Amino acid sequence: MAAAAGVSIATVSRVLNGRGSVTAETRELVESTVARLNRPGPRPRGPARPIPGAVLVRCPYLLTDYFGIIVSSVAETLQLHERPVLLSAGEAAQDAAVLAGLPGRAGIAGAVLILPPEPAADLETLRSRRFPFVVVDPRLPPPRDVAAVSAAHAAGARKLTAHLTGLGHRRIGVVAGPREWLASDARLAGHAAALADAGMIGAPDLIRHVEPTVAWGRRAAGELLDLGERPTALVAFNDKAAVGALQAAAERGLRVPRDLSVAGFDDIDLSRATSPMLTTVRQPLGELGRMAVTLLIRLLDRHTLEALHVELATELVVRDSTGAVPPG
Amino acid sequence: MAAAAGVSIATVSRVLNGRGSVTAETRELVESTVARLNRPGPRPRGPARPIPGAVLVRCPYLLTDYFGIIVSSVAETLQLHERPVLLSAGEAAQDAAVLAGLPGRAGIAGAVLILPPEPAADLETLRSRRFPFVVVDPRLPPPRDVAAVSAAHAAGARKLTAHLTGLGHRRIGVVAGPREWLASDARLAGHAAALADAGMIGAPDLIRHVEPTVAWGRRAAGELLDLGERPTALVAFNDKAAVGALQAAAERGLRVPRDLSVAGFDDIDLSRATSPMLTTVRQPLGELGRMAVTLLIRLLDRHTLEALHVELATELVVRDSTGAVPPG
Repeated sequence: MAAAAGVSIATVSRVLNGRGSVTAETRELVESTVARLNRPGPRPRGPARPIPGAVLVRCPYLLTDYFGIIVSSVAETLQLHERPVLLSAGEAAQDAAVLAGLPGRAGIAGAVLILPPEPAADLETLRSRRFPFVVVDPRLPPPRDVAAVSAAHAAGARKLTAHLTGLGHRRIGVVAGPREWLASDARLAGHAAALADAGMIGAPDLIRHVEPTVAWGRRAAGELLDLGERPTALVAFNDKAAVGALQAAAERGLRVPRDLSVAGFDDIDLSRATSPMLTTVRQPLGELGRMAVTLLIRLLDRHTLEALHVELATELVVRDSTGAVPPG
Repeated sequence: MAAAAGVSIATVSRVLNGRGSVTAETRELVESTVARLNRPGPRPRGPARPIPGAVLVRCPYLLTDYFGIIVSSVAETLQLHERPVLLSAGEAAQDAAVLAGLPGRAGIAGAVLILPPEPAADLETLRSRRFPFVVVDPRLPPPRDVAAVSAAHAAGARKLTAHLTGLGHRRIGVVAGPREWLASDARLAGHAAALADAGMIGAPDLIRHVEPTVAWGRRAAGELLDLGERPTALVAFNDKAAVGALQAAAERGLRVPRDLSVAGFDDIDLSRATSPMLTTVRQPLGELGRMAVTLLIRLLDRHTLEALHVELATELVVRDSTGAVPPG
C-alpha cells in the first residue's frame, strides 16, 4: 500500500488513523491509493472468510452538507474495512428508540452515533452492556467511558476571535448556539479566552443563544445590530447563522466588511457562495468520520482505547467578510 | 392514521404515495403524523413477524445537499416500511462492482440506486436476473424495463427560460451539464422549446457543457460574458454553477440583475445564501426518494408497475437574480 502510493508506511498509517501532520496532497494521494487498491477485481480464490457484522450509522437528521459529509466519510471508511453499513437517518429517526435494542440485534456488531439526541444516561446504559460504539460530535458532554470524537471547538473559536481582536475589534457580538450544547459552550469559552488575551471581558448583552439556522441567525444578528452601541463584528455559531447575519447587515445598509465584520463556523459550501465569502473555521468533517471508524474498529477488535475523547484540530479560514475595525 | 392527522384517507394516500396535488402544510401534517404513529412504544405482543430483507441504498457520491436530501428521504421512507437500510456511499464506492453481486447477497431484498455510474447494460443484467431495484435520477436514459424516478427536467427548464423571455431576454447563455447526461439533454430541450415558443432559435455558441461545480460554472460563464455580443441572461445547470456565474459577473463589474440575469437549478440551500438570492427550479428531492421507495415496495410485493419511468414535477422559484432585460 505504501509502495503503491509512493510514501512511507508511517505516513500511510498517519493518514489512515487520521493522526499526525500530513499535507493535504499526501492525504489525498494515500486515500485515492487506498480506494484503488480496495477496488474489487478478480481475487485469488481461497477459503471463504466469514462476513463481518454490520455497523449501524445513526444520524437522525436531514443529511445536508454538514451531516452528509460525516456520513459519507464514515460509510467510505467502513467499506474499506469491509463492514456492511446499516443506515438510520432523517429527522423521523429521532423518535426511534433504537439504542436500547442494539445489543440484542442479530448481525449488528457496533455503531457510530452522530450527534445523538439521546440523554447521556442512554449512552451509559449502552456502554454498560458492552456494546461497541463511538459518538461523533456529541451534543452534550459524553460520559467519561464512552468513546467520542469531536472538533476542537474552543481552539477554533479562540483563533477566530483573536483574528478579530487583531484587526482592532473590541465590541464583538456572538450569535451562539443553544445554551446546553457542548459545541456552543466550548466555542464561547474559546471566544472569552481570546478576549482575555487582548485584555478584555465580553459583555453578556452581546451574546444571543439561537438555533443554528439562517432565519434565527438573521433575527439574533438584527437584535445585536440594533443595540445602542453597535458591535463592529459578529461571530456566528455556524455558516448558516452567518448567512443570516449577512442578511441582517444588508437590511440595515451596513457594508461587510467595511462597516461590519461577520464570521461563521464549519466551512461548508455555503460559506463560499456568499458575497463577500465568509471568514470561518473549518471543521474536519471527513476526518471526524474516519477517526470514529478507526476507534470503533479498535473497540471491535477488543483493543483498549487510551484516549476515549478525541478532539481533531480546526482551522481558521480567512476570507473577505472580516476586515479592520471601522474608524469611529 | 387519517384520523390522527385530521385529513382524508385519500389525502394520506396521496402524500404517502407522493402523487396528486397536496399543499405543503397538509404534506407536513401527514408526514409528521406518520412519524408520530410510527414512534416505537409499548406494542401489543403478538406472534413475532419475520424481519424483512434489507434494502441497499447506493449513492456513490459525497452526500452534500443534493444527494443527502435524497438519501435521507429514501432512508426515512424505508424505515417507515420497517426495512433495514444498507448504505453504500462516498465517491470511493464508485469503483465497487456491487451490482453484479447483488442478486446473490444474503439478506438483501432490493436496492435503490441513486444516479448510478454504471452503464445501462449493467442495469439490464441486474433486471434480467429478477432482482428488484429502482433507479433515482438516472444519469443516462434508463433501459425500458427498469423502474426509474426522475425530476421533470425539460418542463422545469422550459418554465425557467419562458420566465426570461417574458422579461424581454433574447440572448440567453446556457452553462449546461455534461453532454451525455440525461438531465442536461432534457433541460436543453426545455430551453429550446421555450425559445421556440417566443419565436427564436438558440445560437450554438451560447451553450457551454461543463461539470456542474462552482469553478466550472465560473469559467464557462466568463467565456460567455466575454463574447463579442454579451448574453443578457445566463441559465446554469445547477445552483453551484450559478454561484460561479454570479462570481464571473462580479469579476466583470456586472450588476445582477440590472446588467445580467442569472438562474440556477435544484433550489438547494446555496441558492438562498447568495446576494441576490437565485431564481432557480426546485427539484422535488425528498419526493424523488419517497416515490422510489413506493415503487420498490411494490416490486418487492411482486406487483406489476404500470409506469416504469416516473417523472415528478419541478417548480419555478423566482427570486432576485433575474430581472428585465437591460436597455440596449
